[in-house]
Amino acid sequence: MPVNLVEPENLLAIDGVRLSAGASGIKKNGATDIVLIEICEGARCSAVFTQNRFRAAPVLISEKHLEKTPPRLLLINSGNANAGTGDTGYNNAVNTCELAATALGCKREEVLPFSTGVIGENLPVECFENSLSDIVGLLDSNNWLQAATGIMTTDTVAKAVSTQFEIDGETITITGIAKGSGMIKPNMATMLGYVATDASIDSDLLSECLKSTVESSFNSITVDGDTSTNDSCVLIATGKAKAAGINVKDQRYDTFLKALNKVMQTLAQAIIRDAEGATKFVEVKVTNALSYADAKTIAYTVAHSPLVKTALFASDPNWGRILAAVGRAEIDKLDVDKLSIFLDDVCIVKNGGRAADYTEEAGQRVMSQDEISITIDLVEGDDSAIVWTSDLSYDYVKINAEYRT
Amino acid sequence: MPVNLVEPENLLAIDGVRLSAGASGIKKNGATDIVLIEICEGARCSAVFTQNRFRAAPVLISEKHLEKTPPRLLLINSGNANAGTGDTGYNNAVNTCELAATALGCKREEVLPFSTGVIGENLPVECFENSLSDIVGLLDSNNWLQAATGIMTTDTVAKAVSTQFEIDGETITITGIAKGSGMIKPNMATMLGYVATDASIDSDLLSECLKSTVESSFNSITVDGDTSTNDSCVLIATGKAKAAGINVKDQRYDTFLKALNKVMQTLAQAIIRDAEGATKFVEVKVTNALSYADAKTIAYTVAHSPLVKTALFASDPNWGRILAAVGRAEIDKLDVDKLSIFLDDVCIVKNGGRAADYTEEAGQRVMSQDEISITIDLVEGDDSAIVWTSDLSYDYVKINAEYRT
Repeated sequence: MPVNLVEPENLLAIDGVRLSAGASGIKKNGATDIVLIEICEGARCSAVFTQNRFRAAPVLISEKHLEKTPPRLLLINSGNANAGTGDTGYNNAVNTCELAATALGCKREEVLPFSTGVIGENLPVECFENSLSDIVGLLDSNNWLQAATGIMTTDTVAKAVSTQFEIDGETITITGIAKGSGMIKPNMATMLGYVATDASIDSDLLSECLKSTVESSFNSITVDGDTSTNDSCVLIATGKAKAAGINVKDQRYDTFLKALNKVMQTLAQAIIRDAEGATKFVEVKVTNALSYADAKTIAYTVAHSPLVKTALFASDPNWGRILAAVGRAEIDKLDVDKLSIFLDDVCIVKNGGRAADYTEEAGQRVMSQDEISITIDLVEGDDSAIVWTSDLSYDYVKINAEYRT
Repeated sequence: MPVNLVEPENLLAIDGVRLSAGASGIKKNGATDIVLIEICEGARCSAVFTQNRFRAAPVLISEKHLEKTPPRLLLINSGNANAGTGDTGYNNAVNTCELAATALGCKREEVLPFSTGVIGENLPVECFENSLSDIVGLLDSNNWLQAATGIMTTDTVAKAVSTQFEIDGETITITGIAKGSGMIKPNMATMLGYVATDASIDSDLLSECLKSTVESSFNSITVDGDTSTNDSCVLIATGKAKAAGINVKDQRYDTFLKALNKVMQTLAQAIIRDAEGATKFVEVKVTNALSYADAKTIAYTVAHSPLVKTALFASDPNWGRILAAVGRAEIDKLDVDKLSIFLDDVCIVKNGGRAADYTEEAGQRVMSQDEISITIDLVEGDDSAIVWTSDLSYDYVKINAEYRT
């Protein structure tokens, strides 16, 4: 059961973007498994990819195609990651791009392929052959929910969000979708995320917006610390809105960045809310650190600790496990006698030891909630970082022990 | 159920060391919870402690006492870690040393305190007060098994081993005990380990032997990546054996080191065999790396991966997860197109992709075993490292979700 996450509603079309989805047979249960996102000519597009050294064939090809020419089509399949598949996998991905280009009427290099699902099995190209022209025929600007559903693997709820804001009195829209619930500790992007806006924005600024918002969203979540071979996040700006273009870092840029950040964080948090086996949505916040890097390292060390995660599952205010995880974080300098730890607003550790007025009842009350904030105040500097994570439950083990069977 | 681990047998006395154990009431179920190890005058003693920045009060005191004078008594309690307990915890630990010193008739600084169990609760000093003189009265050189049992917390089997070898025709004996099954990714030592020999060996060489053998034993295991606040390992050499003393790095030193290493590895592996919820004993070996550090980083990244560990639990030869974990290991350089991965002697990955002659049946056969070796051959350099680990099962979650209830 996802934690406070419902089916997305009121998704808004982005002028210049059409989507469609179909069931091609890659997923054996007949669910939707191919998604197309068509992008109008003249749109700008930026993308970030996994930093895992094993990068799936579609990641390699998308990166290469993106360097050559602006994309006209994103070709996404779920059910098979086409990773660890060597030359065969590479050739298969190229072939699916060729098939999609023919069906849509564009060049092969204008297609960016993305795959998600099981690693190490060959991509069934015939599924693409048999279905692509039909799916191209379904392209429509109102198919965001279908697309969000079509890219799911172990996700239980589709993840999508829209937002609107104004620049110079003109409305700008951003809509995004994402998928992922396991093998989640993205490093540059989540499993898969696609965000589009009708704003007009300079290419370099678009890339900068993507990097900055990914850092505080998809690069600030973890389910199990495992980085996928297929992580990708794409940001599209069609420039179809009436508002003037964003070409410098002015107030319009700030307004856009803020709205985009909200979309990205909502999608990233949706992944954690739907994390495999999750019963809790947990924010780990490290404040007053000597550097952002230190703060994030400590936040991730706590968020990855199986002992902290099982205590969260058990609603057990076992602050000793949080303290032990902070203590083993690999940072240069830490004064353990100064720090405080809070569960929501309940101070459990003060000056490195149990807070004098802490009661087990107060800790228990917070831990029983399905949304919990853990704040670690280092009292050392001015930097802070937030990581969102889930707990470690029987169902996490069950889902991952049974994934291929 | 521990993996191929039985109650220790045929433990050998070490001349110069006496042990005893008793139930003082720290553990609420009436199990043994205080262990004494008395060391003869003139013995040499070396110790390593946790590198967690939060170090429990007994760790701080043991380190301080050890610097002042050779120890005469190790005072170990289970059921309470006396960690995260601030000044009260520190004073409590000092007081228990004082009580033990009075009971035995030695100085307070000659007592090294060790604690293991729940973090963050105050040590009940009255339990020591009421029981120490009785437990001192039970000291006997044949009580190694009682001591191994008395230091257990979530362990299900006592961990102890003896070995004998000859130096210059004279018999040398080594006997060691250890405890631990969760919060195990020791950094300098395991939860608790105590090893004694009747060999006579120079102090500096003894320290060197301890550091070197701990690196390839307790510092090469992981259950959950969580480093304890109380990790300690003590090596005692009483010098009571007839063999000549070891004062230089000659053949006698090598013989001693080899025997000690075997004892340390047996104890470290016993911790993994008895890891919380373990159904598999897994060796992760990285060969032909550019450095030992690289090899060990990759081995630990694979051994920590929740996805690899759940696949091991499911006996699923999901090599994609191993490959993805190798790919995210934080090392400077890795040529993913060269490496091979083996499950026992079955090659599953060759040149970075699925091996051509690999069959799911062959992988399944190895994964169904309760002892599995994963070898990652980087084909890059000459260095290698081994890490031993367990799988991630429902019972791991159960044990850690219910620990304090």
